[in-house]
Amino acid sequence: MKVQPVVWREGVVAMLDQTQLPERVVIEEFDDWRGVAEAIRQMKVRGAPAIGIAAAYGLALAARNINAPTMDAFRTEFDAICTAFAQTRPTAVNLFNAIERMQRVVAHSATPDEARARLLTEAHAIQREDYEADHALATHGAVLLPDNARVLTICNTGALATGGIGTALGIIRVAHQQGKLAHVYACETRPRLQGLRLTTWELLQEGIPFEVIADSAAGLLMAQGKVDAVLVGADRIAANGDTANKIGTYMLAVLAHYHQVPFYVAAPESTIDPTTPDGAHIPIEHRDPSEITHLGAIQLAPAGAPAFNPAFDVTPASLISAIITERGVYRPPYRFTSVPSTQG
Amino acid sequence: MKVQPVVWREGVVAMLDQTQLPERVVIEEFDDWRGVAEAIRQMKVRGAPAIGIAAAYGLALAARNINAPTMDAFRTEFDAICTAFAQTRPTAVNLFNAIERMQRVVAHSATPDEARARLLTEAHAIQREDYEADHALATHGAVLLPDNARVLTICNTGALATGGIGTALGIIRVAHQQGKLAHVYACETRPRLQGLRLTTWELLQEGIPFEVIADSAAGLLMAQGKVDAVLVGADRIAANGDTANKIGTYMLAVLAHYHQVPFYVAAPESTIDPTTPDGAHIPIEHRDPSEITHLGAIQLAPAGAPAFNPAFDVTPASLISAIITERGVYRPPYRFTSVPSTQG
Repeated sequence: MKVQPVVWREGVVAMLDQTQLPERVVIEEFDDWRGVAEAIRQMKVRGAPAIGIAAAYGLALAARNINAPTMDAFRTEFDAICTAFAQTRPTAVNLFNAIERMQRVVAHSATPDEARARLLTEAHAIQREDYEADHALATHGAVLLPDNARVLTICNTGALATGGIGTALGIIRVAHQQGKLAHVYACETRPRLQGLRLTTWELLQEGIPFEVIADSAAGLLMAQGKVDAVLVGADRIAANGDTANKIGTYMLAVLAHYHQVPFYVAAPESTIDPTTPDGAHIPIEHRDPSEITHLGAIQLAPAGAPAFNPAFDVTPASLISAIITERGVYRPPYRFTSVPSTQG
Repeated sequence: MKVQPVVWREGVVAMLDQTQLPERVVIEEFDDWRGVAEAIRQMKVRGAPAIGIAAAYGLALAARNINAPTMDAFRTEFDAICTAFAQTRPTAVNLFNAIERMQRVVAHSATPDEARARLLTEAHAIQREDYEADHALATHGAVLLPDNARVLTICNTGALATGGIGTALGIIRVAHQQGKLAHVYACETRPRLQGLRLTTWELLQEGIPFEVIADSAAGLLMAQGKVDAVLVGADRIAANGDTANKIGTYMLAVLAHYHQVPFYVAAPESTIDPTTPDGAHIPIEHRDPSEITHLGAIQLAPAGAPAFNPAFDVTPASLISAIITERGVYRPPYRFTSVPSTQG
């Protein structure tokens, strides 16, 4: 795997700045946790699993720089930093899961030095688990695809979004290796164009045949019988299976339902949030309207044009044919209960 | 009405270059029909009715410069120019209707001079009919909206797209004047962003409350119960009511159907093509992939990323609650027969 969104490098968090892809491959290095938190907010790193990994390394980095004589003082400062990370992105649950795991490590450490060492170990574990989860998930998912599958996907759910080969895009990778993938339709994914900029970049590197489309062309493709399955990632899966993912995912689910095309959600277990009963309880991030009205510094809309810019939508469980994780394939009715994935 | 996409000005065709809006208001003047045809192809003028008007004036202009001694020679040259105009955009039927009307004028003219005079009169008539049709259409359409209507629309169907106040956007204008419009959601309309650039521009000028959205956010809005009606234009309506319109229209129709939101098509009678039996017979224009992978000169996708770029899709009649024209409101089942609108 060549692509790594976040790595730990001798006391600094090194991050591929995804806002500059595909034009420039820029690795940014942070020796202060504030830089990591700001990078998450600015979406230099994005994708629910990768956000969790970045936060974990950010907290491991923060711990090194906390100058506290006692464990109590250390914990107070650490918790404040956790709160700052928790405020960067509200929807992806992997962020909160990672923070919680890091806080648990601190709770079980006797000294600040022990905490510092164990926090880094935990961050590495989160990344490694994601890496392993991706491969298991992809293997389970590829089984669901027919031969010569034509798959439609949205956003970027690849190596850039996770610690491994990706979730939905990981399935696409494995299906391609197995020779059963005919074509990928990549939704460009407005407003930030993760599909157009990032998914295409990964697919080109792998030599996987694809075309990028305007998100709104998904209906035409399904009406023409050109889509055998829709594969998407997830930012949070509620206890009942309702799934928050990139804006436009719900539209794809309704279209798939109407055209009787299977609609699959692929995500690691760490994306499942049994404490959120259903989709109505998932907080949806609304981002700056300028993401729609501008492209970088270029103004596209007339001055003063207001925009509505939800970053995610919720797909009800009833429209999801299956949820694929590293543990296997869940079929409806979904009921996820509170078993932390570390104990699984 | 301040906005006019095309006007005849003392022997030249003056056209508002819509590819430069909203940044710059540039009027281009053409004294050669080739410039008009190329402007249609480049979408400097767009919107099915406006394309028809532009072609009509382009042919009136061409007629002035045909240096033919006999009517036969005139007709031969004129027909060749008609063929050139017919090849600019394949989907919108108004273009072909306008060409056919202009050819009929030539067929009924005794001399080139008579043809030249009558062609200009006919072009003016096409524009005036569109202007009048828009007002009648908008009045019929506004009746269908509830009080405090929240309307979702796609592309630009306003004054920029027609000879008058617009079709779907004309209804929105009249509903706003009647005080029964609460809010407009304008789909930005990838890839060319006619909604983001042009519809917003018209709505701002009229003081109509709106937000522009990523096309893919339409599903979320309907799921949240925020859309009372979807109003769209049309580029061609087949005899059975199947309707070709901007890519993404079909997606909106499926979403509206799923959420039980009324889905209305608004177009002048000149957009109805009784000679096309159904949607399967409407030619769909595929435009250059660079419209998706680039924004003007700026490359957004990685080099070599292929794109699939249909400019239109077809919405089956079964998903259309009503078709609104200047004659009134058609309800399903639709059956349009061959009565030229000039005889209506």
